[in-house]
Amino acid sequence: MAARKKDKAGKPAAAPKPAKVTDTSVKRKAEELDRLTVDCIKTTASEVHQEIGKHRKPDLAFPVRSLGNVKYSLERGYFEIGRQKKTRTLTVNTVKSFAQTLRMMGLSKDLVEGNDFATKRDAYYQSKNWEEARFDEQTESDAVMDDIEALFSVRGVNREQLRFIPDEHGGAVAGRLVVLDPDRETGVVERIDCTRFGSGAYSIPSSVEQLSFETDAKFILAIETGGVFQRLQSHKFWQTSDCILVSMAGVPTRATRRFVRKLSDECKLPVYAFVDCDPYGISNIYRTLKVGSGNAAHLNQFFCVPKARYLGVTPADIREYQLPTHPLLDVDVKRAKDALKNDPFFKSHKEWRGALEDLVRMGVRAEQQALAKWGLNYVIEEYLPRKLAHPEKFLP
Amino acid sequence: MAARKKDKAGKPAAAPKPAKVTDTSVKRKAEELDRLTVDCIKTTASEVHQEIGKHRKPDLAFPVRSLGNVKYSLERGYFEIGRQKKTRTLTVNTVKSFAQTLRMMGLSKDLVEGNDFATKRDAYYQSKNWEEARFDEQTESDAVMDDIEALFSVRGVNREQLRFIPDEHGGAVAGRLVVLDPDRETGVVERIDCTRFGSGAYSIPSSVEQLSFETDAKFILAIETGGVFQRLQSHKFWQTSDCILVSMAGVPTRATRRFVRKLSDECKLPVYAFVDCDPYGISNIYRTLKVGSGNAAHLNQFFCVPKARYLGVTPADIREYQLPTHPLLDVDVKRAKDALKNDPFFKSHKEWRGALEDLVRMGVRAEQQALAKWGLNYVIEEYLPRKLAHPEKFLP
Repeated sequence: MAARKKDKAGKPAAAPKPAKVTDTSVKRKAEELDRLTVDCIKTTASEVHQEIGKHRKPDLAFPVRSLGNVKYSLERGYFEIGRQKKTRTLTVNTVKSFAQTLRMMGLSKDLVEGNDFATKRDAYYQSKNWEEARFDEQTESDAVMDDIEALFSVRGVNREQLRFIPDEHGGAVAGRLVVLDPDRETGVVERIDCTRFGSGAYSIPSSVEQLSFETDAKFILAIETGGVFQRLQSHKFWQTSDCILVSMAGVPTRATRRFVRKLSDECKLPVYAFVDCDPYGISNIYRTLKVGSGNAAHLNQFFCVPKARYLGVTPADIREYQLPTHPLLDVDVKRAKDALKNDPFFKSHKEWRGALEDLVRMGVRAEQQALAKWGLNYVIEEYLPRKLAHPEKFLP
Repeated sequence: MAARKKDKAGKPAAAPKPAKVTDTSVKRKAEELDRLTVDCIKTTASEVHQEIGKHRKPDLAFPVRSLGNVKYSLERGYFEIGRQKKTRTLTVNTVKSFAQTLRMMGLSKDLVEGNDFATKRDAYYQSKNWEEARFDEQTESDAVMDDIEALFSVRGVNREQLRFIPDEHGGAVAGRLVVLDPDRETGVVERIDCTRFGSGAYSIPSSVEQLSFETDAKFILAIETGGVFQRLQSHKFWQTSDCILVSMAGVPTRATRRFVRKLSDECKLPVYAFVDCDPYGISNIYRTLKVGSGNAAHLNQFFCVPKARYLGVTPADIREYQLPTHPLLDVDVKRAKDALKNDPFFKSHKEWRGALEDLVRMGVRAEQQALAKWGLNYVIEEYLPRKLAHPEKFLP
């Protein structure tokens, strides 16, 4: 297939580098992460304890989580959290939330040491046995968990490493990838070959921190809709194109974003996004995947995928492939104009400004499945090979 | 574990019967289905053609799809479509929709013969090349597809056999199950061992018609939330309890329901539902899984799971396990009262009437994760083993 040869010439496509992983190194890495996590918790708790021992009021300083405390640099490639902190000092008024924060940290330590995990909801219900420190509403326990997450993110520890995992389902994966997953109890590493799922796929677990990878793929194709993913998977597109397919099913979940990020980092793979051509696909799905979001900037260092590039569907594709379209709704136009005016990502990339302005001018949007107008497998036989022959032309 | 031994005594638990499947039988079954499907299409088209040859107006008679054309019998175990039909005769006014129906049937025939598939959306975009017969809106092509589905359902052919597949994502599966999936092109059967996915899982494909199974499991546990599924999967609950775990992630998708139904039928496995104790979990998730829905009764023969029984969380569990609760909202109370008054399923089962009345009286609801109050793994170590020791006590 033409796309294969030309990929090598194209700039963003990395040479295939199979990452060789041994059982021991997988286990060692997981243990190191756990040590760092427990150390973070212990250090913080000791400081509180020492202050109390000196009859002083202990405090905890959390990074401020808001758009006002965010910076974006082209080199880093994602929204970073700034240096503003809010300090919570132990007083009569704050004693309950202070205690809850410490109990939540204690729960995290137990989880790491017991090699277990809890969802946000689990943690809320666990607190029902914390007597005076129990939470009345899950929104309260969620907020405390977010604070702890932000606190430890400064030391490079994320929420999944604290063993708090999302309730939501992960995405689906198929293609040239072996996932290595050590058993929670025995440590024996399961080798999961993502070429061997038939028409099904590998469902990403809620937490992916313990995973390692082996692959000779050249890129990751992150797909918006289940329908297109199923088509590419059933026709084994990953085999002819040396790639890994990931189904995002709309805005990708935390686990899916983290999975793509880890895989992209550890195996040095570019990520190509294939989404609908509308302001939602571009600014909500793609931008969140690539640079993260403003109001959760403490997460972006772990969750965004700076190596992502935008394969399509582009506004130019609508013309070139004469795609069937739908008119842009008011909410679409507003979203596009907001992005042009306020979003540091789109403001930093003139190619994107041009594309968004183009889309607003045309006044239409097109879905990735609109390519089916030219035949159900046109996407496999024509569109993707033509695009993949020139990854240097992808939008940044 | 106590649950294992006592399962054998309990009535609904079937004896483990490993279903042995050969590559040839898998392929033969798929080919038979395809022949039946093409035969349905050809017969219908020939009848139309003959009528035209005799200079008579051809017509097509579709089953009426509405609650008024539904019957429920305890023996069959699901809502069945009745005998009312609506007839579409070819006239000047109906010529476009008549032609569209025939083109859609033609597309289905091409898909079966080319061994491919299309989503609803794909089919809509394909029609853009049908000139005068093209659809202007996807709602129109969806309606035509629903009619064709209802038409052929009378001969036991479902939409997936017509090769129209859902856009939506399937559920996740883990446990004592090998899925056999013949390759679309080569026919080589992939054996997918659902015990070998580490903390991840098998993601059900959009269409499951071609799948066969091998299993020595004793039951299928269908779980509402991703959080509980992940806990049971990470702790390999399926190993100690000889079962298959299925994550429904809310109301199960078509593919998930069909998968559970096929697996339950072909391997003679009971299905135990483990959902939140609230009118939504009981009437929307469980009831839809077990007997199907009223307004799509032509699907129920394929999609509902009459072997399903309700493990929990029951209203009685809220008291027995002293679970943390939330007050029932007005919408919950309304849903429960509607079910008691109008739903033939709940009206036919006095245990369910009692349980729903109990819930309304208590005025509260409880989530399955509320069991975490007693410890994160209480659900694994205590709740499920105790319940599974007495499947005869499950709600019907």
